[in-house]
Amino acid sequence: MSEIAGVTQRLARHVVTTRWENIPSAVRHQAKRSLMNFFAVALAGCRTGPVDIALRSLAEFSGGRQATIVGRRERIDALSAAFLNAAGANVHDYCDTHVRTVIHPTAPVAPALLALAELRRVSGPDFLLAFILGNEIQARIGLAISPSHYSRGWHITSTCGVFGAASGAGKLRGLDEQRIVWALGTAATQSAGLCECLGTAAKSVSVGNAARNGLWSALLAERGFDGPPEPLAGAQGYFRALAETPDLSLVTAGLGDNWEIMATSYKPYPCGFVIHPVLDCVLDWRRDNPVTEVARVVVRGNPLLGARADRPDVSTGRESQVSMQHAVAVALLTGRAGIAQFTDACARDPEVLALRSKVELVRDPAFATIAAEVDITTGDGKVHRMSQTAARGSDVNPMSDRGLEQKLRVAAAGWDNRHDIDPLINAIWTLDSSADVSGLASLAVPAA
Amino acid sequence: MSEIAGVTQRLARHVVTTRWENIPSAVRHQAKRSLMNFFAVALAGCRTGPVDIALRSLAEFSGGRQATIVGRRERIDALSAAFLNAAGANVHDYCDTHVRTVIHPTAPVAPALLALAELRRVSGPDFLLAFILGNEIQARIGLAISPSHYSRGWHITSTCGVFGAASGAGKLRGLDEQRIVWALGTAATQSAGLCECLGTAAKSVSVGNAARNGLWSALLAERGFDGPPEPLAGAQGYFRALAETPDLSLVTAGLGDNWEIMATSYKPYPCGFVIHPVLDCVLDWRRDNPVTEVARVVVRGNPLLGARADRPDVSTGRESQVSMQHAVAVALLTGRAGIAQFTDACARDPEVLALRSKVELVRDPAFATIAAEVDITTGDGKVHRMSQTAARGSDVNPMSDRGLEQKLRVAAAGWDNRHDIDPLINAIWTLDSSADVSGLASLAVPAA
Repeated sequence: MSEIAGVTQRLARHVVTTRWENIPSAVRHQAKRSLMNFFAVALAGCRTGPVDIALRSLAEFSGGRQATIVGRRERIDALSAAFLNAAGANVHDYCDTHVRTVIHPTAPVAPALLALAELRRVSGPDFLLAFILGNEIQARIGLAISPSHYSRGWHITSTCGVFGAASGAGKLRGLDEQRIVWALGTAATQSAGLCECLGTAAKSVSVGNAARNGLWSALLAERGFDGPPEPLAGAQGYFRALAETPDLSLVTAGLGDNWEIMATSYKPYPCGFVIHPVLDCVLDWRRDNPVTEVARVVVRGNPLLGARADRPDVSTGRESQVSMQHAVAVALLTGRAGIAQFTDACARDPEVLALRSKVELVRDPAFATIAAEVDITTGDGKVHRMSQTAARGSDVNPMSDRGLEQKLRVAAAGWDNRHDIDPLINAIWTLDSSADVSGLASLAVPAA
Repeated sequence: MSEIAGVTQRLARHVVTTRWENIPSAVRHQAKRSLMNFFAVALAGCRTGPVDIALRSLAEFSGGRQATIVGRRERIDALSAAFLNAAGANVHDYCDTHVRTVIHPTAPVAPALLALAELRRVSGPDFLLAFILGNEIQARIGLAISPSHYSRGWHITSTCGVFGAASGAGKLRGLDEQRIVWALGTAATQSAGLCECLGTAAKSVSVGNAARNGLWSALLAERGFDGPPEPLAGAQGYFRALAETPDLSLVTAGLGDNWEIMATSYKPYPCGFVIHPVLDCVLDWRRDNPVTEVARVVVRGNPLLGARADRPDVSTGRESQVSMQHAVAVALLTGRAGIAQFTDACARDPEVLALRSKVELVRDPAFATIAAEVDITTGDGKVHRMSQTAARGSDVNPMSDRGLEQKLRVAAAGWDNRHDIDPLINAIWTLDSSADVSGLASLAVPAA
């Protein structure tokens, strides 16, 4: 093969030729962390309205019970399972993030591979390898078109995720280079998703489709369904239609040496990231102090905190996710900041309302966006000062493995507090020695 | 409702408020003509490679046998049937065309509605009304973004077709204005398809998805699956992402007075349109003359005929579709110019090869692109001159109703010459008095 082979072919060759032995151990471990986070957010989203409606609708047309829906006892065909698990994982703004592209990388890829793993036995290393490669391909396509692609209204998780699912599924099926190129072509012609739909159920369709259609692209290619030789960089291809001034060099620069999954961040709380350092302070204080009367809270942070999250009055769960005052109040009252703390009911809880009115904000450019200081005045007049210099989950203070486990525990308990999630946690950490991944997703389903 | 309501809402209101009584009789008749043409092209494409592979793959995941696949005895779920029938109808370049946008309008819409009609009883007038409205919505969205959208690489039949399927299916389900807007939002975030994939199997996926995903968008909206209020013209919506300088006035200008389905043309032959006047001449001559020795053929036509179709040597069916010499030779030998005359086998037939070497082309700008003159010299030295001033199927010489029936007859006989297609032809012409459309598609399936 010549060195001037097209960019699609270069990516396909990377997918085909990369072996488990080529993956550094830090990258292997990060893949497990991404899966831990995936199961947490998928459990958090698995019973929301969009997933409920899509499941009821798909069940009318689906055959068989091939694959698991995370957190639910229903089973469904593999394509629909990929759709539903991706949609559910992304329904809250609680996903992992590839910071430079703002792609949520795991939602489209992991569900495609989990569904495949229930169709045909695959080993843990093969599964992790396919997952890492799917992540890599979509991130690199995203890097080439960022930031203008997203600015134009494209929901980049969806529009790039379909390539991640296609290449990951193609790897797991053992497709050759030509067939991976075909799969990427069928993925390219299904790439879709608009930011205009954020905040509505429709958002979940493009994310679900990224997993479902990427998986299907690989399965079609496996059967000989062909596509063009250069779907990405061709004259009427993906970059021409969906990008402004793509930088193709970013698609292949350092391929096989750098791993974009290492640039993934995970969120400890399902709310705006600017609120995170504030929550770190409040939760740390609350952990060491029993519930007590709070007279006043003064929060100091970067002006961006004010611009994005100074919302003393909110009335819906979605709004509460971008309200610093709500977050402080609910964290003080419950000692938590999980999905259950950002619901419609919680945003209208009289106790929360009473407390959030006591929260004041001081904008101070001396604070970095990932830093904050919180003064909590208790009923006895004492002032307790807490501070955070780098929010948990930020690039310089990544969530710990234990933190990710805890995120999963909380999400699992949110639906069924008898759900023993330890087997899933153990299975994820030991995935590289697993001979068969087919049972992994079902550990995320509570027993009947 | 205010007059400054958004463009999506305007379209939704048109879909909701338009009744069968509002449809002029010429428009009703044109809808039947489009359906006649649809069944012809769907029968022509129903056993091609892309449809075969997609069917085998979907059957692995599909439940039930809800809906008909045109031309085949297998049945499949309604979403997959919509996909397969749209993909099959468009697989050859033989579809109807909305000339100003180059949308092939019926392939995405009719399959969605036929599948719905097998799920729940609908009357012929309701079916035709939904079909006409689906056509209208997609054409108007296409007009607003033409020609730059297509030039940028978007396969406009797919990217606009999803709106046609969504609005037609929404109408057939009786959705209200809000739900039609939601359906259009879920359609917008699934709008996809690249011209780079033309000529490969991957093309069929975006066309099939337009029908499948449009239908699904309506079914989701019916269940309360919401979307943004202005998916088309919103700040991060469809027009911003997929269009350059959209002219929104074209979306609504004359809505309810003009009907874009009237601007649809139908192809009598499955090959490049520039060859059509030449084929008119040859087939007319051949019809009145028994097969005889042909010594020489001289074709005169517009220089565009030479630029697009002067290909004396071709070796594949696809290439033969843009070879004037092949078309003339095969039409002289068989008296036909249907799907069977543009196959790989036909392009390599020694008799065809021998005859096409006797075909000469004279470029003459005095001819319009829809005109041609053909001099056929028979073995006895006599020269027979035939001429056509306006090709059949062009806007000034539309295919006759009988011509469309014949196109359907030929396509049906191409797979099974015992297939009695008269009941389907009769059912289409009498659709406006049908109380139940559920059996329509099955008339396009040969008996066992």
